[in-house]
Amino acid sequence: MISVEEARALLFDLVSPLPSEHIPLAEASGRVLSEDMTATRDQPPFAASSMDGYALKSTEAELHAMFEVIGESAAGRRFDGVVGPGQAVRIFTGAPVPEGADFILIQEDAERRESLITITQDPGTKTNIRPAGIDFTQGTKIVAPSVLRPEDIALMAAMNIPTVPVTRKPVIALISTGDELVMPGETPGPDQIIASNTFGLKALLENAGAHVRILPIARDTVASLETAFGLADGADLVVTIGGASVGEYDLVAEVSQTLGMERSFYKIRMRPGKPLMAGRLGNTAMVGLPGNPVSAMVCGYLFLLPMLRRMLGIEQVLTPFQSARLAEPIGKNGPREHYMRAVLGADGIRACADQDSSLLSVLAQANALLVREPHDHARPVGDEVRYLPL
Amino acid sequence: MISVEEARALLFDLVSPLPSEHIPLAEASGRVLSEDMTATRDQPPFAASSMDGYALKSTEAELHAMFEVIGESAAGRRFDGVVGPGQAVRIFTGAPVPEGADFILIQEDAERRESLITITQDPGTKTNIRPAGIDFTQGTKIVAPSVLRPEDIALMAAMNIPTVPVTRKPVIALISTGDELVMPGETPGPDQIIASNTFGLKALLENAGAHVRILPIARDTVASLETAFGLADGADLVVTIGGASVGEYDLVAEVSQTLGMERSFYKIRMRPGKPLMAGRLGNTAMVGLPGNPVSAMVCGYLFLLPMLRRMLGIEQVLTPFQSARLAEPIGKNGPREHYMRAVLGADGIRACADQDSSLLSVLAQANALLVREPHDHARPVGDEVRYLPL
Repeated sequence: MISVEEARALLFDLVSPLPSEHIPLAEASGRVLSEDMTATRDQPPFAASSMDGYALKSTEAELHAMFEVIGESAAGRRFDGVVGPGQAVRIFTGAPVPEGADFILIQEDAERRESLITITQDPGTKTNIRPAGIDFTQGTKIVAPSVLRPEDIALMAAMNIPTVPVTRKPVIALISTGDELVMPGETPGPDQIIASNTFGLKALLENAGAHVRILPIARDTVASLETAFGLADGADLVVTIGGASVGEYDLVAEVSQTLGMERSFYKIRMRPGKPLMAGRLGNTAMVGLPGNPVSAMVCGYLFLLPMLRRMLGIEQVLTPFQSARLAEPIGKNGPREHYMRAVLGADGIRACADQDSSLLSVLAQANALLVREPHDHARPVGDEVRYLPL
Repeated sequence: MISVEEARALLFDLVSPLPSEHIPLAEASGRVLSEDMTATRDQPPFAASSMDGYALKSTEAELHAMFEVIGESAAGRRFDGVVGPGQAVRIFTGAPVPEGADFILIQEDAERRESLITITQDPGTKTNIRPAGIDFTQGTKIVAPSVLRPEDIALMAAMNIPTVPVTRKPVIALISTGDELVMPGETPGPDQIIASNTFGLKALLENAGAHVRILPIARDTVASLETAFGLADGADLVVTIGGASVGEYDLVAEVSQTLGMERSFYKIRMRPGKPLMAGRLGNTAMVGLPGNPVSAMVCGYLFLLPMLRRMLGIEQVLTPFQSARLAEPIGKNGPREHYMRAVLGADGIRACADQDSSLLSVLAQANALLVREPHDHARPVGDEVRYLPL
């Protein structure tokens, strides 16, 4: 039996960062920038006014001074002349500061009569000018890899970058296995239940940047499983759910080996979650998750998301643990790491009452996985514990 | 001058929750469930084994007891007979518990020879049976409105809900205004810069559930603005950026009034951000944001996201403030609320050095807006302050 951390290290060996593709900037939010980007221009490209007012010489900016307004500089339409002594140019926010001027008198400090202005308030010493290149200059870098946020998108737009190199989306194929399953919308027989894991995992993995294909349910026959594996062709990662246990009807291991998979079977010291089977099938990584719905989702958070992030080239593949204080006591833990469904509230964190790994209703009410070390002792209210946000 | 909170209340009056649409469950992640959903089945629909083992009578489950194995119950294929005294049925995880049995002996506690098993370990009293309906029963509700998480999607799949009612995505049209702007990929003239606000806001609003249309840049002419407003037809919210200031070239207010807008102009006691213009044009809400890139994005977080959440029918429209301790001292604040670009790290939060509202590079490095009350006094390292995560 190995730890969650050891299992993760083994799983990382199955995947590697994927190649880049170039996409339009407007579609790049949330994608992973895969190459450093470099600005090829200065922003602003000229000294610009930060206020509406009058551009003039700072040496002349004194209370009661008068100026002749000789023109206007607006955003996009600069004043082409030179500001001389006793002269001013009407200027608006963002407009280029005209030659000869080095001070923007804000309009609230001036009184205008036809083409003359008088300074009516102490103009102070703040120039209200943004120097050229104060935001960024040619050569300013945006460093990869990084998950692009709205702010990064805005910055790259300002740098005149219309398309960006991002890591291609990993394609993940999900295969539910089992004679007991039907798809949502079908009519289950008396012994059947609805396939739910693929739907939950699709949402989880797509939120994190994957392109997910839900394949038809594989029945508990060699032929059906082989068909499903065939449909997974082209995926970067194939995930089977169920059928990886030790019962006679668990055919996933058998079929994947027939197809040439170098198989590893990890017995992981964790709850919920084991068993977990993994390997490589040519260029495709394969992971077999347990069929219990909560186990499958928890394995999604603990194993699939980090593998996905590694394929995306993200440096921090693990969700950092957070800590909170217990709002209710918890009993001692057994020999395995336990990822307890828990609710984090204003008064602290409390483990859900029923930790059975079949209970999707409990998982849907939870917003955290409370992490217990093997053999952790019982803990009272107020103890600090670690959790993973859901 | 009004506060941010007062401005927000006025803006909320411009929008209301949008109608529902039905979409496939597999596409519903992140959407807002708009009607309560009710389970029409029990999960599990039958008492099910939670382990691989043997189903038998609990009264007979004693060390060294022997049983005849009379059949097998697998997931999806139940054993149709009745388990009598001295009899057992081979059973796998998730399979229906056969009639007559009320105890699952786990296989590790049994030794099998042909059709006979002997209990070789103390079987204990845990039945290893999940009662019918322990996850959910007919009538169990998922309460709307709620933003659907992967866990909710999995639960609804298990409930056999193939399509879900969600709030229609609000359509938001973004119009940048100004002669100084060109789109990314174009060659700017010497007085021009690249339109960046629409790209940043599109990413921000789409992350939060909007469908965003970036319209062509409106020039500083009445005709160009009228064209842009015309292209916004069908949007639930039109957002203009720039052109809402007091300079002579700020035509947005003039044109929107010509088009029949009931206009409100809010002078908000905040930095960065004012001016903000808003109103209604028929069925469409309109908001005019300032043109400075950082101001536009901050207004996006403070005003547009809450309006969007209100259109989506989300109950908690405001992002809750969080608190952190100052890692560096900050000076006293002026008369306006100040949303300072800040970086939250392990040692606390620090305001960025340059708070000029034109600096996208600073915004892209920030991960928080540090919130200052009007006239807040200077604060030393270690003081607790409020922030909004970016």
